[in-house]
Amino acid sequence: MGTRYNAIAGTSAERLAALSDGLFAVAMTLLVLDLRVPALEAIHGEADLRQALIGLAPRVLIYLMSFLTLGIFWVGQQTQLNFVARSDRTLSWLHLAFLFSVSLMPFSTSLMAEYIAYCTALLVYWFNILLLGIVLYLTWRYAVRAGLTSAEVTPMVRRSMERRILIAQGLYGFGALLCLHSTHWSIGFIFVVQAIYAIGPRTGPLSRI
Amino acid sequence: MGTRYNAIAGTSAERLAALSDGLFAVAMTLLVLDLRVPALEAIHGEADLRQALIGLAPRVLIYLMSFLTLGIFWVGQQTQLNFVARSDRTLSWLHLAFLFSVSLMPFSTSLMAEYIAYCTALLVYWFNILLLGIVLYLTWRYAVRAGLTSAEVTPMVRRSMERRILIAQGLYGFGALLCLHSTHWSIGFIFVVQAIYAIGPRTGPLSRI
Amino acid sequence: MGTRYNAIAGTSAERLAALSDGLFAVAMTLLVLDLRVPALEAIHGEADLRQALIGLAPRVLIYLMSFLTLGIFWVGQQTQLNFVARSDRTLSWLHLAFLFSVSLMPFSTSLMAEYIAYCTALLVYWFNILLLGIVLYLTWRYAVRAGLTSAEVTPMVRRSMERRILIAQGLYGFGALLCLHSTHWSIGFIFVVQAIYAIGPRTGPLSRI
Amino acid sequence: MGTRYNAIAGTSAERLAALSDGLFAVAMTLLVLDLRVPALEAIHGEADLRQALIGLAPRVLIYLMSFLTLGIFWVGQQTQLNFVARSDRTLSWLHLAFLFSVSLMPFSTSLMAEYIAYCTALLVYWFNILLLGIVLYLTWRYAVRAGLTSAEVTPMVRRSMERRILIAQGLYGFGALLCLHSTHWSIGFIFVVQAIYAIGPRTGPLSRI
Repeated sequence: MGTRYNAIAGTSAERLAALSDGLFAVAMTLLVLDLRVPALEAIHGEADLRQALIGLAPRVLIYLMSFLTLGIFWVGQQTQLNFVARSDRTLSWLHLAFLFSVSLMPFSTSLMAEYIAYCTALLVYWFNILLLGIVLYLTWRYAVRAGLTSAEVTPMVRRSMERRILIAQGLYGFGALLCLHSTHWSIGFIFVVQAIYAIGPRTGPLSRI
Repeated sequence: MGTRYNAIAGTSAERLAALSDGLFAVAMTLLVLDLRVPALEAIHGEADLRQALIGLAPRVLIYLMSFLTLGIFWVGQQTQLNFVARSDRTLSWLHLAFLFSVSLMPFSTSLMAEYIAYCTALLVYWFNILLLGIVLYLTWRYAVRAGLTSAEVTPMVRRSMERRILIAQGLYGFGALLCLHSTHWSIGFIFVVQAIYAIGPRTGPLSRI
Repeated sequence: MGTRYNAIAGTSAERLAALSDGLFAVAMTLLVLDLRVPALEAIHGEADLRQALIGLAPRVLIYLMSFLTLGIFWVGQQTQLNFVARSDRTLSWLHLAFLFSVSLMPFSTSLMAEYIAYCTALLVYWFNILLLGIVLYLTWRYAVRAGLTSAEVTPMVRRSMERRILIAQGLYGFGALLCLHSTHWSIGFIFVVQAIYAIGPRTGPLSRI
Repeated sequence: MGTRYNAIAGTSAERLAALSDGLFAVAMTLLVLDLRVPALEAIHGEADLRQALIGLAPRVLIYLMSFLTLGIFWVGQQTQLNFVARSDRTLSWLHLAFLFSVSLMPFSTSLMAEYIAYCTALLVYWFNILLLGIVLYLTWRYAVRAGLTSAEVTPMVRRSMERRILIAQGLYGFGALLCLHSTHWSIGFIFVVQAIYAIGPRTGPLSRI
């Protein structure tokens, strides 16, 4: 018969974490390549350079927004992996699918930075966030169902993890819809949602999301 | 006489794993650089941008295929290293040769994305996969023969690891041959093989590969 | 009610360190992309190539300066994290803000390498260093106040960490002011300050900074 | 008085190893960016593409040579760090200087790939290897003298580490001199030396280097 590869492959949660940290680190740093230094030909003095840098402001904002997105999902994945006692092959591949979505982020970000007024670009960006959310949700559901989580994972923790993803995706989806009105509204709304998630208020109505 | 460097060099399996995770992370993220944002000059409205993005679909497919390839070999190498109790200089260099093949992947991927209808490009891509397979096979054989594997490695585990690489490479080789007919058949076949390896069905005839 | 995500998210100081090491590694290596190989068209012999390479000297200097900057802040963050017994969500986000500033460094460096005589470019570069300092200061203050530091952190250690950042930022600020006279004075002064921090003299008046 | 920063900074050998693994991984993968995919305009059939790929052979060779260089120095640094019981600020900075030399490698490699017949390019490449050797030698001497090495480090181990670097640098220096005759001789000689170091023969006269 022979041992099945399924039974022995992908059991190291540490290496999954190391690969994830590496991939997030590269994706976060590649984002900066969209901030292109102004071309020498167009700059004839300090005033020109200041003008050119001020013109970069929307790109800096989108860069910051994508950094926030990756930060939110990095914290989210880390929180999940902290609760995972061991991995298996399926969980490894679900996390690889998650990392695939992470690696698409520099592309979605470039696209939106270049086409900031286009609904199409915003929908691609939103689709990337949706993909991140769906895969992260599935990894969690799978880890719980396959009994890979540690004993600390009470039903309350489990529901907290799931509810959080669903609420966040609901808000992102609403933000994407706003592009029917204007992409600037969408970007503004998504940015605010992300800032709230990053700051994570501890009291008041927002402390529950 | 003096101590021989051979006896003291390259004994850390953890650092080998850390270097590998880093290199895989960079290679996986560099792949996305092939997805180039459409040039501003050619886009005059939402419809143009949608058309241009649809035109990127073959590149996205090849990107996904290369991500699958790297994922499969990452899981494969991880599974091997989990069974390795300690490393030595030769094993370190065999893994470095493996990482060299990994680092070629962004080039092979770019080449195939640019020349999707060329048999030559497909054969370069296949040769890269073959190289990954050969080196991974050699690292395993060496680790077993040099007694570097842990006690869990029964003859069954050993054969399972070897058989898996041989079957996979046989399928990839057949896929490459299909390019005599058309490169699209090759790409389609290799893609399906990789998807099966990634999903890893647990029952039925495919559960044995 | 349900468990609050705030209470369970971002508690792994190890993964924070791993993400940081990855991001610093990428940022440090991306800096080298500013050293562009001389274009083939302009080189007709060994003498031309030597001339072209000598012309790269200012870029090498700025590259070295940015590497020093990143090295100084990497050592600074590592020293902090060594004293942190555990992390929480706020500390994770403060470190992510720190990493955001790190990821801006390749842009600031490119800008200064391209516009070495422009005060505007130097101020952007200085602002990046200031941001790194401010965020690192805040992470430390937060870690101390939230009781996340280990028992070794005596009031003396705490003050030493804070004083160091304040003195360094004072010196960098003075260096930036020098650009009113000439950017070369600024760059020279900041370079010397960084070299002293890197070499870290153990005796004499400079051993206190 | 206050605690001196010198006494508390840079004491984590693990984070030094993690930063190094990340930086080596990025540098190794960036090398592949020199292998540029042939431009679409010049390719009108399979034969053209095959010709263009054959024309890439010298670049592949130089890429492989640089990968070997980085591999050799990665194994060398790892072997040193395995013998280091703890780090301090000076050792951290010596390793950062080593990593700076590592991060220059993609530039030196690009330069040599573009100017393969130029002695100047070869000397820059050699100077980079020399720098790696000098800094690695200094880190080792410092670690030994400062008492940071573990108890396993007998005088024999110490001398073995030092002798190895000196012999290797002697051979590289001789290889660089050969460029007075022709850069191809230099490259060939250095390549063979590196291959011997990588393969590490266990018997015969070469087993001692």
